[in-house]
Amino acid sequence: MYELMIHLDNNSKKPLYQQIYQYVREQIEDGKISCGEKLPSTRILAKHLQVSRSTVELAYEQLLSEGYMEAEKCRGYYASDISKLYLAGEKRDREMGLQDFPRKKKDSYEIVFSPDGNEMGYFPYNAWRKLSREILSADNPEPFLSGEPAGEWELRRAVCNYLYHARGVNAVPEQIIVGAGNEYLLILLAQVLGEKRKVAMENPTYLKAYRTFCNVKYEIFPTGMDEGGISMEEIKRTMPDIVYTMPSHQFPMGTVMPLKRRLELLNWAAGQKECYIIEDDHDSEFRYKGKPIPSLQGNDRWGSVIYIGTFSKSISPSVRVSYMVLPEKLLDRYNKNCGFYSSTVPKEQQMVLTEFLARGYFQRYLNRMRGVYKGKHDFFLGLLRREKWVKNIYGDNAGMHLLVEVDTDLRQEYVVSRAKEKGVLVYTLEEYQIPGSKIEDNEYPILLLGYGGLSEEQMVQGVGLLREIMEEKTCLAEK
Amino acid sequence: MYELMIHLDNNSKKPLYQQIYQYVREQIEDGKISCGEKLPSTRILAKHLQVSRSTVELAYEQLLSEGYMEAEKCRGYYASDISKLYLAGEKRDREMGLQDFPRKKKDSYEIVFSPDGNEMGYFPYNAWRKLSREILSADNPEPFLSGEPAGEWELRRAVCNYLYHARGVNAVPEQIIVGAGNEYLLILLAQVLGEKRKVAMENPTYLKAYRTFCNVKYEIFPTGMDEGGISMEEIKRTMPDIVYTMPSHQFPMGTVMPLKRRLELLNWAAGQKECYIIEDDHDSEFRYKGKPIPSLQGNDRWGSVIYIGTFSKSISPSVRVSYMVLPEKLLDRYNKNCGFYSSTVPKEQQMVLTEFLARGYFQRYLNRMRGVYKGKHDFFLGLLRREKWVKNIYGDNAGMHLLVEVDTDLRQEYVVSRAKEKGVLVYTLEEYQIPGSKIEDNEYPILLLGYGGLSEEQMVQGVGLLREIMEEKTCLAEK
Repeated sequence: MYELMIHLDNNSKKPLYQQIYQYVREQIEDGKISCGEKLPSTRILAKHLQVSRSTVELAYEQLLSEGYMEAEKCRGYYASDISKLYLAGEKRDREMGLQDFPRKKKDSYEIVFSPDGNEMGYFPYNAWRKLSREILSADNPEPFLSGEPAGEWELRRAVCNYLYHARGVNAVPEQIIVGAGNEYLLILLAQVLGEKRKVAMENPTYLKAYRTFCNVKYEIFPTGMDEGGISMEEIKRTMPDIVYTMPSHQFPMGTVMPLKRRLELLNWAAGQKECYIIEDDHDSEFRYKGKPIPSLQGNDRWGSVIYIGTFSKSISPSVRVSYMVLPEKLLDRYNKNCGFYSSTVPKEQQMVLTEFLARGYFQRYLNRMRGVYKGKHDFFLGLLRREKWVKNIYGDNAGMHLLVEVDTDLRQEYVVSRAKEKGVLVYTLEEYQIPGSKIEDNEYPILLLGYGGLSEEQMVQGVGLLREIMEEKTCLAEK
Repeated sequence: MYELMIHLDNNSKKPLYQQIYQYVREQIEDGKISCGEKLPSTRILAKHLQVSRSTVELAYEQLLSEGYMEAEKCRGYYASDISKLYLAGEKRDREMGLQDFPRKKKDSYEIVFSPDGNEMGYFPYNAWRKLSREILSADNPEPFLSGEPAGEWELRRAVCNYLYHARGVNAVPEQIIVGAGNEYLLILLAQVLGEKRKVAMENPTYLKAYRTFCNVKYEIFPTGMDEGGISMEEIKRTMPDIVYTMPSHQFPMGTVMPLKRRLELLNWAAGQKECYIIEDDHDSEFRYKGKPIPSLQGNDRWGSVIYIGTFSKSISPSVRVSYMVLPEKLLDRYNKNCGFYSSTVPKEQQMVLTEFLARGYFQRYLNRMRGVYKGKHDFFLGLLRREKWVKNIYGDNAGMHLLVEVDTDLRQEYVVSRAKEKGVLVYTLEEYQIPGSKIEDNEYPILLLGYGGLSEEQMVQGVGLLREIMEEKTCLAEK
């Protein structure tokens, strides 16, 4: 039997039973009491330590409940075999020679005009926290049990209703597939639609979708756009069997596809065999002028459209919840090929999100954020319009970025790299161009400037620094 | 301008400004005040309603902040265009003819001997809730910002330390990829390892992995096992370039691969070109006898092993967090092909999980649950050993199911379907057999009985009902 050499400190703030617990635990963790070794009875230890027996019993109870020791009837207490298990803690780390794994630092810029930037200052943290607390309420196992593969029914129902009212999407909850992000849903979709597909994509486009299609070995047809959106001539020439499009607000061009082109696209797809349109409705929530543009899916009478949307933009980038609306004719294939995958979204988060939608928090937050982003949009637009070097502005009145044509002789690459030197990160259309494809060169540089994550002060500072770059040139030229 | 016909109730518990707010909001939501319509000034409305101007201002402020109206300088207030947006609520549902989308009911059984069943009665809900509350503490945007693609660094570091101490896995956090479930990680892995791979899988096996490989169009070689695990003879004959194996506790057979076979497998893989072993260490946390068996990865000196594990079993099935440890030589390819995918696990959950690990909750819970499952295991084993119809029991002392060979002349299918009729769902090895493959027929039926999710009463009841089936037979035979 192991002899416990515990030095109890009667003056310590730590209760005596805690001191006993901790000592025994450390001895077991450090392997000084090894697996299966017998421990003294509570009576003997209490006598040895000159404490009451209930003090020792309390310590043993905790050790038993945490699995450090085991009790065998009529035989006594034995150390459990945890020595090889999880021995965390700094001391052990040091003994094992584990380092703190230092990280490499990334480049950092003072002002980042990222099109993915967003404003979290108005997020209803209290509401989210409250819902989260409710869902995790006392000993309710529900959020910890396994959930439904395609997403919780209540969430799918709420999404279904939201999409009907907000986006004119016609669907029943069975058609809604909830998953952790658009790319994950595209991967699933590829497992539904099968191999060797040919995808027409607007060019430039959302490159993560492009790269996902490449990873599933789909052939990509980069397709041109005019002011009405994706070119039907090119589509009819290349004859893809999937068209990936963002009709309500093309990224990054900001083009809105008019009804005529939508119907043309729908009619064309309906006339092909096994041809689908993937409608990525990524940021349709944020339009600042005119009526919201209903989804392409709402006009589809043939079941050609697969609609994809996300809460990552409308709620928060860390809410990795996207939804896909499958045409009914694809549901059997989905269930057969993908129905066995467990949901990639934690049930807890789905439950919080469902309440967030059902109780109107989402609607209020969206309304509010539309106002906030409109304010940013208006401010940024006003700011840019006062700048001499700004020749034209495209893609306004929606989303979270503007395209700014620059009146300068400087080459675009120079503007971008000079801006970096000044601590400003700007983006260009080339970064969203499908690799290997050709897009007509612009006569003047075009900058893609996202403002969603910037304060007015940051916008002023960033635009000021860009102005300096354009003026540097003028100075040189004047010399 | 719209005339507001508000009937204020001075005796209501609801403050006057709330009554005004709600009335205007409903009018806008119902489209009775349409987009762009001008609303009365606060002065006029206050006079009209005989209330103080500040009461109206309060109502308007809320409407403005929630986006139901907009203020234009020097021009007044206008209704926002939200009519097409999100108009939830029962009333609207009824108007729109939306149903409650009734659901189909599933078959239900009184006793389900599922190998996936687990016990959530001991989950430290309070701790999880406390951590969750801390992470979501007042206005902290951190858990809502976008996270790192391969998982939060702190979580990867914690997983790395855990795997080192608990499973002997050698890795640095850069090698850890966190994702929403094993299947998702296997899909990513396929995008790293490339097309047209040939995978040897133990047969029977974990069929979700099999189906995932099928979905990514990998060719599967069902491979036999002996008491030492996967057959090296068959591997050397079929020459796969991936071996998917569960060396520490094969599912469903329960086989533990001895060191000799492990080294043989590692040596063979090291001798092949671009050959990898996927080690699925699915439930190694739950061993009830002897020392934990260290991972195959820990013995790998060539970087052949890709280690996969999950918190879905050790914490809760709704914690959809799995981790993959990539050999260093695959990291570049991972970053190139998959580095752009956003993490599929919400940052909030990753942060809670990191603290759950770092503060020792995980360790304590695991210790405790090992005791709980051992208790269930011992009870179930004792129960079965007393049954006459139980011929042999395999796969004991680990995991959450037993294989029970039944001493009966009844055909296995009959036992299973008769059990269903009696409200008991039992499983068989055939359900885990790779489709189209041949496994030697058993002389006697073998039932796969999971006990992780069952109480002792349920086990007694389920075993009793099975006994009845076996006795029915005897009665018939005796007649």
